[in-house]
Amino acid sequence: MPDHRLTFVLGGARSGKSRHAEELISRHQSPWTYIATAQAHDDEMRLRISEHRARRDGRWVTLDAPFDLAGAVAALPDGVPALIDCLTLWLSNRMLDGGDPERGVAELIDALSVRRGPCFVVSNEVGLGIVPDNALARRFRDEQGRLNQRVAAIADEVVFMVAGLPMKVK
Amino acid sequence: MPDHRLTFVLGGARSGKSRHAEELISRHQSPWTYIATAQAHDDEMRLRISEHRARRDGRWVTLDAPFDLAGAVAALPDGVPALIDCLTLWLSNRMLDGGDPERGVAELIDALSVRRGPCFVVSNEVGLGIVPDNALARRFRDEQGRLNQRVAAIADEVVFMVAGLPMKVK
Amino acid sequence: MPDHRLTFVLGGARSGKSRHAEELISRHQSPWTYIATAQAHDDEMRLRISEHRARRDGRWVTLDAPFDLAGAVAALPDGVPALIDCLTLWLSNRMLDGGDPERGVAELIDALSVRRGPCFVVSNEVGLGIVPDNALARRFRDEQGRLNQRVAAIADEVVFMVAGLPMKVK
Repeated sequence: MPDHRLTFVLGGARSGKSRHAEELISRHQSPWTYIATAQAHDDEMRLRISEHRARRDGRWVTLDAPFDLAGAVAALPDGVPALIDCLTLWLSNRMLDGGDPERGVAELIDALSVRRGPCFVVSNEVGLGIVPDNALARRFRDEQGRLNQRVAAIADEVVFMVAGLPMKVK
Repeated sequence: MPDHRLTFVLGGARSGKSRHAEELISRHQSPWTYIATAQAHDDEMRLRISEHRARRDGRWVTLDAPFDLAGAVAALPDGVPALIDCLTLWLSNRMLDGGDPERGVAELIDALSVRRGPCFVVSNEVGLGIVPDNALARRFRDEQGRLNQRVAAIADEVVFMVAGLPMKVK
Repeated sequence: MPDHRLTFVLGGARSGKSRHAEELISRHQSPWTYIATAQAHDDEMRLRISEHRARRDGRWVTLDAPFDLAGAVAALPDGVPALIDCLTLWLSNRMLDGGDPERGVAELIDALSVRRGPCFVVSNEVGLGIVPDNALARRFRDEQGRLNQRVAAIADEVVFMVAGLPMKVK
């Protein structure tokens, strides 16, 4: 199925993930759909959202999907290039909401698996530091790691960003 | 010495290190020896141990070596494929026990160097986050980094796991 | 301009960055200039500085540039091989001093861009752990990530160190 392409862009904070994903999607015909998972809780996040938004022009359609990401992916028309930015904020929204992320993750993997059209998914690698002190952070890091493995397993391409440069993983 | 093969599987939390090492060892003739370094201090760890154990069937022999890992490696019969999972828990056991890990590390490197038979060693990379607040965590991260360098130096193959996928380092 | 070579050595704590950069510079004719950014605030840092210093013999000239790194780079004679160790301590010095690092970063990038002679720059990747609790650490990690991207963008070669081994990124 040559029309189904899933690219997974993984990396640390400020490693150039979003910018690289935007560059990749720009090789496809616009309009492009940007699926945003961020919620503007505080000034730091508002600033980051506005910085990202300032990079996107009229060729972009922006959808907000802080919780029902699987639904947003399933509702995309076939063939439309889409960029999901990012899984880490989505997972955080789901976990802070008190829920077990397991069902949401399964639904997301299903939606990505059957999606027909170029899809670029951004996520953070968060497991390469010292074990966090608090239990919630440890649980988050476990869930994020599991989610990243599942997306990478169904992705056609996986890149790991280092200082703005992509390293090919798959 | 073609019968001496040391493979080092390094990665972050939940990056698929154990699973990848199990896949690599399964290409060798069973039985396989699993050298476990975990100690079941709390529920989180008990759950993780039981999850790992559930993946291993009757073709595995499990040895526990939370402290004397060099002794366990030295006692292995020649040729038996072995998987050590993992150096991070072992180092943590040694350091929490109040000891300077230096001697234990030197003994382990010696034992791995002379071992005859396929050996797969799992360890965590923990140095890619912000400098930890507390001195013990900083010291642990230094010792872990030094240990990883020493094992990588004597290894025949080194892979860095990203989202369940191996990147070849050596 | 074949006489202008910038090599960026990036990695985690205790990943062998300094040692690898020293090995790379040793392929050039000595004397070599070592531009140190560390300040000996406490015993931990004094120990680390003395360990690094013990590895360098009479073929090295050491300059201290904890703040004005751009000035130190600009003052280097053409052609002299230089090693900057490291950007992370320099950035930390600049930020702890209360300043916005933006101007210093721009000056540094300019100085590195016009430098004529082999230059090896060491820096830490700090963005691959869980989001830090405190705002200063989060800001530092953002600034470090941005700085690393800018240096990587102008570098001729970029390596990511894993357990003492270089992975080629660019």
